[in-house]
Amino acid sequence: MVEPASIVCKRIDKPVIFAKLLFMAGDLEAESSLERAFSWITGPTTPPRLEAAMRHAVFGGGGRVRPRLALAVASACGRGNVDVASAAAASIEFLHCASLVHDDLPCFDDADLRRGRPTVHVEHGEALAVLVGDALIAGAFEVIGRGCESHPGLLGPLLATVARSVGAVRGIVAGQAWESEPTPNLRLYHRAKTGALFEAAVCVGAIAGGGDPGAWLPVGSRLGEAYQVADDILDLVGSASALGKPVGQDARNGRPSAVQELGYERAFGRLQTLCDSMFTCVPAVEGREEFVGWAMNLCRKLFPPAEQCGVQRSNEAFLTA
Amino acid sequence: MVEPASIVCKRIDKPVIFAKLLFMAGDLEAESSLERAFSWITGPTTPPRLEAAMRHAVFGGGGRVRPRLALAVASACGRGNVDVASAAAASIEFLHCASLVHDDLPCFDDADLRRGRPTVHVEHGEALAVLVGDALIAGAFEVIGRGCESHPGLLGPLLATVARSVGAVRGIVAGQAWESEPTPNLRLYHRAKTGALFEAAVCVGAIAGGGDPGAWLPVGSRLGEAYQVADDILDLVGSASALGKPVGQDARNGRPSAVQELGYERAFGRLQTLCDSMFTCVPAVEGREEFVGWAMNLCRKLFPPAEQCGVQRSNEAFLTA
Repeated sequence: MVEPASIVCKRIDKPVIFAKLLFMAGDLEAESSLERAFSWITGPTTPPRLEAAMRHAVFGGGGRVRPRLALAVASACGRGNVDVASAAAASIEFLHCASLVHDDLPCFDDADLRRGRPTVHVEHGEALAVLVGDALIAGAFEVIGRGCESHPGLLGPLLATVARSVGAVRGIVAGQAWESEPTPNLRLYHRAKTGALFEAAVCVGAIAGGGDPGAWLPVGSRLGEAYQVADDILDLVGSASALGKPVGQDARNGRPSAVQELGYERAFGRLQTLCDSMFTCVPAVEGREEFVGWAMNLCRKLFPPAEQCGVQRSNEAFLTA
Repeated sequence: MVEPASIVCKRIDKPVIFAKLLFMAGDLEAESSLERAFSWITGPTTPPRLEAAMRHAVFGGGGRVRPRLALAVASACGRGNVDVASAAAASIEFLHCASLVHDDLPCFDDADLRRGRPTVHVEHGEALAVLVGDALIAGAFEVIGRGCESHPGLLGPLLATVARSVGAVRGIVAGQAWESEPTPNLRLYHRAKTGALFEAAVCVGAIAGGGDPGAWLPVGSRLGEAYQVADDILDLVGSASALGKPVGQDARNGRPSAVQELGYERAFGRLQTLCDSMFTCVPAVEGREEFVGWAMNLCRKLFPPAEQCGVQRSNEAFLTA
């Protein structure tokens, strides 16, 4: 049954405090998953400067949206094995961090600010920044292997999912490479660049939680697209200090953007539609209601704060729509 | 029982033609493994320029030493499953190609020639060169997953082996990163930079062939070290046209080298000792003799040709030692 976000929102009015607590707990859980996974991919023989640069890349703030999404889906499905869910969540975030470090390099965006701090290549040099990305991509697969040691039957599906999300066919590498094409395929570009890791996050969460990854895929696709549209809007109306990274990069780098394509008003409408439509896709699992509450908190954060774009377009508007 | 290379060499005098044929056949097998694996990690939605750059990186010549080593070990162990051996061999070569592409970047060696052709970043730009490395690292894991679809029990051990060989603890990323340290640990540096992929090649070959990877590890370590010493010698006495890449890079980049450390004569002695010692480590498997014959052909190629360093130091000298 199709339920617009506004109805879902009202229905979860009561457990909203619980949902907020769950949202905050997911933060801590994602962070501890990353700490554990990081200890697996580094060791006493890791060159010290490389380890420092890797730590900079992984633990420099960040919303942890993808690993929290993976953990929330695993939890909604019944969790299955906690170690597998934790490793899968960390794996997706490692890939995300790797892509940020490489995207920031001078040969791509040449960005000097990320998450409110100097980018990895600015702080540690270009050579180590390239290696950090390499180490985190390899590390993403290593932690999947480690996490599945007691559940070898999950390794094949998880590995295939993670590999697809980063690869040259429809993964983040393909997404980034479309920017080097004279006539990029915009649909493939957006889906690969941002959608791939969101889709992977829900799928690995479902696999780890004993759910059906195919049923969750549309949730990831819609969230990924919503995230991309929100990012394009913030690139236009956000401030570098609030975002912790430079703004106006899409226009500067001549990159396709939802705002450029649809205009500001319609981009906003598209964002709202995507969030609404995402909620209708959430499978009827035992923990559906908690997941919807959690995702509502997530979507609220996608909308720029009121002071940046007028009250009727703020996150408050979304929550009372 | 310890057998010096000269004795082993005489003992295999008779099947030497067979060994040479096997060596040539390994070439074709490695190439077809790579073609098949490449088709798994690219597809109709891969951005065309990225695919061209990936193809440049993987199919631009190269000795295919590591995949052939993996296939030779699998064959010596009894082969096990051909698909698994083929995928594992391709996986190791993908990682090797990825490391070459990233090593050649301006922020590392800034090399413009590789395998007798322009390097990937010279031909396709820095951005695509970074992405090619990323795609090949992820692809190395993807092909392991694909190759093990019918043998899921081998996936865990293969994934762990491949991950170790590329990672930040003792893998090629760690090896490359030691070059950014003010006081690199030379033993760890060499073992990680060159040894890691040779060790992985023999181990994945043994796993795929149903053998004992631990028993084969010393063969990989010695071959890897021999390869590094040979590379250091060729960097001094070789010619760019014969090697297909710039020479004198160690001195130019201030990199530690066996020739710099031991001097030319002793480096040569070390190379011979490593090859001899490698043969003594080959486990007593059914196909040991064929493997030794194959490896003898390989070692012969490690020694610079006579015209570059005098007859007594040439590969002919090694074979009649």
